[in-house]
Amino acid sequence: MTEILRTRAALRARVTGWKRAGEVVGVVPTMGALHAGHLSLVTAAKAGCDRVIVTIFVNPKQFNSASDLEKYPRTEEADAEKVAPYGVDVIYAPGPEEIYPEGFATSVSVSGLTEGLCGAFRPGHFDGVTTVVPKLFLQTGADKAYFGEKDYQQLQVVTRMAADLDIPVEIVPCATVREADGLALSSRNVMLPADTRRGAAELYAVLSEVAAALSGGAVLDELSGAAEARLIAAGFEKVEYLDLRAVGTLAPMQRADGPARLLVAAWLGGVRLIDNVAVG
Amino acid sequence: MTEILRTRAALRARVTGWKRAGEVVGVVPTMGALHAGHLSLVTAAKAGCDRVIVTIFVNPKQFNSASDLEKYPRTEEADAEKVAPYGVDVIYAPGPEEIYPEGFATSVSVSGLTEGLCGAFRPGHFDGVTTVVPKLFLQTGADKAYFGEKDYQQLQVVTRMAADLDIPVEIVPCATVREADGLALSSRNVMLPADTRRGAAELYAVLSEVAAALSGGAVLDELSGAAEARLIAAGFEKVEYLDLRAVGTLAPMQRADGPARLLVAAWLGGVRLIDNVAVG
Repeated sequence: MTEILRTRAALRARVTGWKRAGEVVGVVPTMGALHAGHLSLVTAAKAGCDRVIVTIFVNPKQFNSASDLEKYPRTEEADAEKVAPYGVDVIYAPGPEEIYPEGFATSVSVSGLTEGLCGAFRPGHFDGVTTVVPKLFLQTGADKAYFGEKDYQQLQVVTRMAADLDIPVEIVPCATVREADGLALSSRNVMLPADTRRGAAELYAVLSEVAAALSGGAVLDELSGAAEARLIAAGFEKVEYLDLRAVGTLAPMQRADGPARLLVAAWLGGVRLIDNVAVG
Repeated sequence: MTEILRTRAALRARVTGWKRAGEVVGVVPTMGALHAGHLSLVTAAKAGCDRVIVTIFVNPKQFNSASDLEKYPRTEEADAEKVAPYGVDVIYAPGPEEIYPEGFATSVSVSGLTEGLCGAFRPGHFDGVTTVVPKLFLQTGADKAYFGEKDYQQLQVVTRMAADLDIPVEIVPCATVREADGLALSSRNVMLPADTRRGAAELYAVLSEVAAALSGGAVLDELSGAAEARLIAAGFEKVEYLDLRAVGTLAPMQRADGPARLLVAAWLGGVRLIDNVAVG
């Protein structure tokens, strides 16, 4: 089984040895409840680095609801088993007191990129992300960090934060991993009630069709009503957004007249699902 | 003369070589207009490190008034001459576009410690400090960073930020350097009108007397009226605060019934002066 470290002192001692030997260190930051999406990040990290650390930390600061934090799946033993065949060097699974000790008072924010999409519906969420992620980068001393495109806005925000703070880490984006029916893998999928699972696949189906229409020159506003109706018909309770955004700035677009991304967030069976695809 | 680097790429290339050789790197972050206070930091850095970088960057984000930013002295040539005898390895003097390139969107804040004292009178000031300082730490890759106790609240805030973000740098506090009459050295002193210079010394005189009384068991509220009156009589236009704070938390105190610091900010000849002393 992969060794689990719980303190940054133990982690630093390990990493210092690696760095001294000139080894390239990769990190895959996770909140646990690992699935094949995470494991694809691990595979990419193994290919690009000499040493790989998987972090497991359910970060309270990025949950904007106490019940969401409480319900979030915690499966450390199963996570360690899943990671075992991949040759990960260390699992770093600190407790909250190791990340936010008594007196902790600092927060990191990114403006602009965080303001729409999930940022509009989850107040404080991205501040929580951009406060914990630099800590994980600096605690692990990673040279490269692997993030999934499934959390596309998070990927842009983290990339901006790391560049802005001059953290010497390369952010490596990795493609979304999907179920056979297209559903993007997410730790939240296990919370979906059984009778909603089939409908969940409509999220990617709708996203793909709207993206195809946009690529053909269509205007988003003329597509979104029907797209939302189709999701509601499939059992979704609510569509938070279905937005076309410019790659890089995440500026809103109506037509895909430049590199763009179509992003969606919707609730199904009390679970918030997000997904996105490239357009054009 | 000491070599001046202007880009973080050039700086990183230099520091990488030092780190590879196992050398300990120290940084003295400054806004230029160097005086003997800065030079005492340089001396401490030389004693504690193999390599010393002095950074000179007038950080626009930490000025809460455009005119204050404009008036701030900029004396790079003279600064380089002053530093020359000290064996500093590199002066890093980036332009604003190197620190805040197009698209920069991140800010770092510390709560609690920043809320009173200068934080109450200079909105946004400490956010500016805690946004630029981690960048300077990470751009220089410094193992140790030297700060003067003259900016006592800043020292506490920077120490908190570096610990909270897990930046692997040791913050080394250095004692305030004073003129013969007690005036704490500050880059702002050159802006004092000639006829106010004598009165300026009253700031430290008053601070020392109040600190002595507090050490003897006095209560701050019973001393502050007379102390302020004495400063006004010496020509000060306004006393912003004269506060007793607990070491560590900066919690307000009335009696020095634990390790404490007495801090003052006051305006003289249109210049804002600050100072502080240990109590007890």
